[in-house]
Amino acid sequence: MKDTLMRWKLPIICFIWQLAMIILFGVFIRYDEEANAHWNVIRRIRNITSALENDFYFRYPSFQDVHVMVFVGFGFLMTFLKRYGFGSVGFNFLIASFSIQWALLMQGWFHSLDFSDGKIKIGLESLINADFSAASVAIAFGAVIGKVSPIQLLIMSLFQVTLYAVNEFIILTVLGAKDAGGAMVIHVFGAYFGLTITRILYRTNLDQTKNESVYHSDLFAMIGTLYLWLFWPSFNSAISNHGDAQHRAVINTYCSLASSVLIAIAISSLLEKKGKIDMVHVQNATLAGGVALGTAAEMMLTPYGSLIVGVLSGAVSTLGFIYLSPLLEKYLKIQDTCGIHNLHGMPGVMGAIVGAVTAAAATEGVYGREGLIEAFGFEGRFADRTPSVQGGYQAAALCVTLLLSVGGGAVVGFILKLPFWGDPSDENCFEDEVYWKVPVDEEAPLRNVHYENNELKKPNSNGDTQQ
Amino acid sequence: MKDTLMRWKLPIICFIWQLAMIILFGVFIRYDEEANAHWNVIRRIRNITSALENDFYFRYPSFQDVHVMVFVGFGFLMTFLKRYGFGSVGFNFLIASFSIQWALLMQGWFHSLDFSDGKIKIGLESLINADFSAASVAIAFGAVIGKVSPIQLLIMSLFQVTLYAVNEFIILTVLGAKDAGGAMVIHVFGAYFGLTITRILYRTNLDQTKNESVYHSDLFAMIGTLYLWLFWPSFNSAISNHGDAQHRAVINTYCSLASSVLIAIAISSLLEKKGKIDMVHVQNATLAGGVALGTAAEMMLTPYGSLIVGVLSGAVSTLGFIYLSPLLEKYLKIQDTCGIHNLHGMPGVMGAIVGAVTAAAATEGVYGREGLIEAFGFEGRFADRTPSVQGGYQAAALCVTLLLSVGGGAVVGFILKLPFWGDPSDENCFEDEVYWKVPVDEEAPLRNVHYENNELKKPNSNGDTQQ
Amino acid sequence: MKDTLMRWKLPIICFIWQLAMIILFGVFIRYDEEANAHWNVIRRIRNITSALENDFYFRYPSFQDVHVMVFVGFGFLMTFLKRYGFGSVGFNFLIASFSIQWALLMQGWFHSLDFSDGKIKIGLESLINADFSAASVAIAFGAVIGKVSPIQLLIMSLFQVTLYAVNEFIILTVLGAKDAGGAMVIHVFGAYFGLTITRILYRTNLDQTKNESVYHSDLFAMIGTLYLWLFWPSFNSAISNHGDAQHRAVINTYCSLASSVLIAIAISSLLEKKGKIDMVHVQNATLAGGVALGTAAEMMLTPYGSLIVGVLSGAVSTLGFIYLSPLLEKYLKIQDTCGIHNLHGMPGVMGAIVGAVTAAAATEGVYGREGLIEAFGFEGRFADRTPSVQGGYQAAALCVTLLLSVGGGAVVGFILKLPFWGDPSDENCFEDEVYWKVPVDEEAPLRNVHYENNELKKPNSNGDTQQ
Repeated sequence: MKDTLMRWKLPIICFIWQLAMIILFGVFIRYDEEANAHWNVIRRIRNITSALENDFYFRYPSFQDVHVMVFVGFGFLMTFLKRYGFGSVGFNFLIASFSIQWALLMQGWFHSLDFSDGKIKIGLESLINADFSAASVAIAFGAVIGKVSPIQLLIMSLFQVTLYAVNEFIILTVLGAKDAGGAMVIHVFGAYFGLTITRILYRTNLDQTKNESVYHSDLFAMIGTLYLWLFWPSFNSAISNHGDAQHRAVINTYCSLASSVLIAIAISSLLEKKGKIDMVHVQNATLAGGVALGTAAEMMLTPYGSLIVGVLSGAVSTLGFIYLSPLLEKYLKIQDTCGIHNLHGMPGVMGAIVGAVTAAAATEGVYGREGLIEAFGFEGRFADRTPSVQGGYQAAALCVTLLLSVGGGAVVGFILKLPFWGDPSDENCFEDEVYWKVPVDEEAPLRNVHYENNELKKPNSNGDTQQ
Repeated sequence: MKDTLMRWKLPIICFIWQLAMIILFGVFIRYDEEANAHWNVIRRIRNITSALENDFYFRYPSFQDVHVMVFVGFGFLMTFLKRYGFGSVGFNFLIASFSIQWALLMQGWFHSLDFSDGKIKIGLESLINADFSAASVAIAFGAVIGKVSPIQLLIMSLFQVTLYAVNEFIILTVLGAKDAGGAMVIHVFGAYFGLTITRILYRTNLDQTKNESVYHSDLFAMIGTLYLWLFWPSFNSAISNHGDAQHRAVINTYCSLASSVLIAIAISSLLEKKGKIDMVHVQNATLAGGVALGTAAEMMLTPYGSLIVGVLSGAVSTLGFIYLSPLLEKYLKIQDTCGIHNLHGMPGVMGAIVGAVTAAAATEGVYGREGLIEAFGFEGRFADRTPSVQGGYQAAALCVTLLLSVGGGAVVGFILKLPFWGDPSDENCFEDEVYWKVPVDEEAPLRNVHYENNELKKPNSNGDTQQ
Repeated sequence: MKDTLMRWKLPIICFIWQLAMIILFGVFIRYDEEANAHWNVIRRIRNITSALENDFYFRYPSFQDVHVMVFVGFGFLMTFLKRYGFGSVGFNFLIASFSIQWALLMQGWFHSLDFSDGKIKIGLESLINADFSAASVAIAFGAVIGKVSPIQLLIMSLFQVTLYAVNEFIILTVLGAKDAGGAMVIHVFGAYFGLTITRILYRTNLDQTKNESVYHSDLFAMIGTLYLWLFWPSFNSAISNHGDAQHRAVINTYCSLASSVLIAIAISSLLEKKGKIDMVHVQNATLAGGVALGTAAEMMLTPYGSLIVGVLSGAVSTLGFIYLSPLLEKYLKIQDTCGIHNLHGMPGVMGAIVGAVTAAAATEGVYGREGLIEAFGFEGRFADRTPSVQGGYQAAALCVTLLLSVGGGAVVGFILKLPFWGDPSDENCFEDEVYWKVPVDEEAPLRNVHYENNELKKPNSNGDTQQ
């Protein structure tokens, strides 16, 4: 008998955390110079003639696309669950809204803290990075969705964003790896962090029939899929260098994603019963090409190189859904609700490797001397690096990410396993009614009878059953 | 027995109004210089070297976001009504399409009429302002939705857009108040105008059980909510000054909205039965932080100031849904279908006050002398103003807006109360079948039986019942 | 008894085509200079001071809007079909993803092949043009949807994109016609190509009751409609000249679309039974104003001219749905599932004519000498053209497009009529279950019974019936 009552726990944790954010923002966070009312004076001093020379105009369209991906893309992608639509969109909304606030602080401390005045200076790029952090949390959410309480999600977000910033600092700043679209920092990290947690929270008697879709919920999920697919070029180019790097990242991601679609549908039809295409693959594996370009999108990968990456990652992802996921559940006890291992885990690792190889293979002939320096940041501390050394650091970055994600996931998993966080009983998993006021549909009485007689009443009598 | 037949009335009003638009556009509206084929010549004369120095490139991304908010955001937000989805999206589409045309004229006469040739010159900023005007109409629609005919909506739009332009002229041009995101001109004006109308159109025997959602309609509504939430930073920054002001407005709105989400969910869980979260609050109160920054977003409010505004407005909005709306209905007879008082009314007033206080508290230390002049427009007629005087004018602008909205709403309400506009009878409110051809669903026979036997046939026999 | 099994055919065609794309991309496609790592060097040589002077920043927001239109807009527009939602969104996803790859090659060979090194150089404008090509395919899909197999769709896409590039080359490059928003190259071409195919694939015993909507599917379709409507200004301005032309195209399209909405709803209410508005018209005819400005949007059409075009095209489109479509089906045996003749065919032809007239009527007084040269490209080979001659070439371009689309459609139609492509039997048209794994909905048992007992089992026994 589980106590899933959220009345006191959830509000209190929300209030405390939001209060903490206000205090910490008040102490630490200020506008950066491009968002500050003194900008016109600074422009004059630096002889910047055009008002357009503000990072805002370089990145705002990409930022909004990323913003849509995090909240609409991931939120609706998970609405395929027939009775967990509110939880999919709503909890994603909640944890992403918390994560972006906490990420502005955590990433700020590591990256944009101005030690002269002890303040974090934020601008549009900080908002994009905060959204990236929330994307990583949304990925991990895909593994545990339906089996945890909103409190557990908030706790997971707190730890994940923290560790995300640490990992990002180590691999980007210390190791000098490149990862503009976050194959490692976002996808690999989010996936293995979430998978480790769901492993620790393994449920023996999970009712898998509820972890399914109905006709309309699959269409809602396609809203999420399409916005993720369409805006992934913005995701992979959002924080690339101005000019050709952003331009190139868009072209590469566009090509890669297009080829993933054909391959995902081909393999689905090849291997599914009676050659019928499975919407699960259309909703997920079509996106693998975006993940797998997370590191290399801004590099001179060439358009045909991008197509190849899209094909391979689309294939790996679809095959993962068909063959690997059931094995992971059976033998490793990993209950991966949305199949994030197939969409973010394996394609993310592939993306990190593609990035390492592409970096190692870079030449002055292709990039030009200047282009090479700019593309890989071979300046300052890293001025002596060669492309092949850079490739080594990229590989090291993948290892660090894997270690931190699994290690961090283990710690957080055990914290979430404590018995007082209000998670649902096995038979009430994937059921919105546990945490949400679900409207009665007088026109579909069968649906309500179903709810009222069979499920929420019988197995747990914690008072959640009546509407 | 009401005559809801639209056959002649609706087409005729549409034809006449559209014809009027064509004639008035022909007489008055021309392209502004940046949209005119002579632009290249003008550029050369003014020594503008880059083709990017066209307002188009500063504002087009924000414009498109605002455009999505008005048509998808508001349209889908109201689809929570289980049997009024067509009316929500479709009537919103109709009245917004009319309002933007009429707004180009009304706002043009007040703002961009070139007295040398008697023409209104329109450009991208005119389109944004026209969309703002339509947003205000969509807000008022939220109060009366389901209870009025499309003819009444078109008449309401005509008057509202007219009065909107008058109010905007008084508070922005005459009083010199700042209101870039429209806390006053859009939200307060739209809300109290709509609320006054719905008060006058009070229905004693309204069937409140139809003013509800079902599971899928709540998910459709979340599409509206999320696009409003995501693009609100664009809304509040769309017509701000180029450069740091747009940048800052985005940061502030982003922070404010994030904190509203946590507070809305916390309070919902705290006060709803069994601690279950209510989708009504997630769909609406999460947006309060955007409204409440409508005036101050472009000011140096600081990020933590934005968080505080988000928390307070989110709290006021959620509490309004739980406690105030039932009281307004019971004692003041205000039937506010979508709860616009909670989402736009109170947060809008709060936003106006926040704007007045932030303006009054502005200092040269924070803005710099030049920044202060630019941020508040202390030039020309207003060159002598101090921030505290500006604060006073901001407060005066709120009063003017409240007066005009309630006064105008009263007049329009009485016009709409005339008996020949084809509004539905009490028992047919919130029912798409009155004005729309609704498809028969052979797979959900219960739904159709319901329609055919109980509702539209019995109480009114005006010929609306058979499909 | 038709064999709709896709197991081998579909995967093999996908694999072969994707492999061909990889090889051809490898041989031919490279980044253009603005997406190349040498861009910074080129900038220095050309004395381009700002990183913003990269076509990326002029067109990326428009590109993303067009991208959304092709995949979400067209995909969801067709989900009105009550049992073909997966096919609408999913097959559109498949064929658009293939078409954009093939279009980069075909259009590249015709337009951006650099004969010095035999390579196609692609940049953002190439991606937009590829998306345009996919839009044309999506339009043709609207005529045949529900009646063909995914293999037939892929074959159709291959031929259509090929012919699209040929037609585009003839009318834009050879004839020097202007068609920035593709009234001819996209809409007329796509519509008459698709209509010719559906004519040849005429089915005598088509079950028209399945070619219908249910309540929720109409709301899903409105997602498509609204995104098409909202982003059409981007569509018509995406590849216009930088500066005033893009600005003007947006204003014109915005005005035209607004007036289409009022007229579509007016005529629907006027002519439908009991004056009730039909969602079919709201979903489609409201968009006619965008199509009808496909050629003239960037010209000095004036805002009121745009309103007039919107009114006329909206009227023609709505009347087409009510009167013409049934006649076309009855007498010409054209089964036009989505009514593309009304949305793209007639408004497209109108758009071509409006473009020809507007071009012929252009004067130096309105455009200025320089503006006229820039707007119509009266340079090089075309330096001697006058506006009236240009008008003639515009008209010629329409004739070429009509000829090529009908001729090409006839050839492709007969290819698709071959008996081994796996199209569904007449009674299984508009039925997702033929090609898709459709989830069982235990809460709507009537829906499943329906499927299991009546339809897929009885008429064809090719093994498609059990899930």
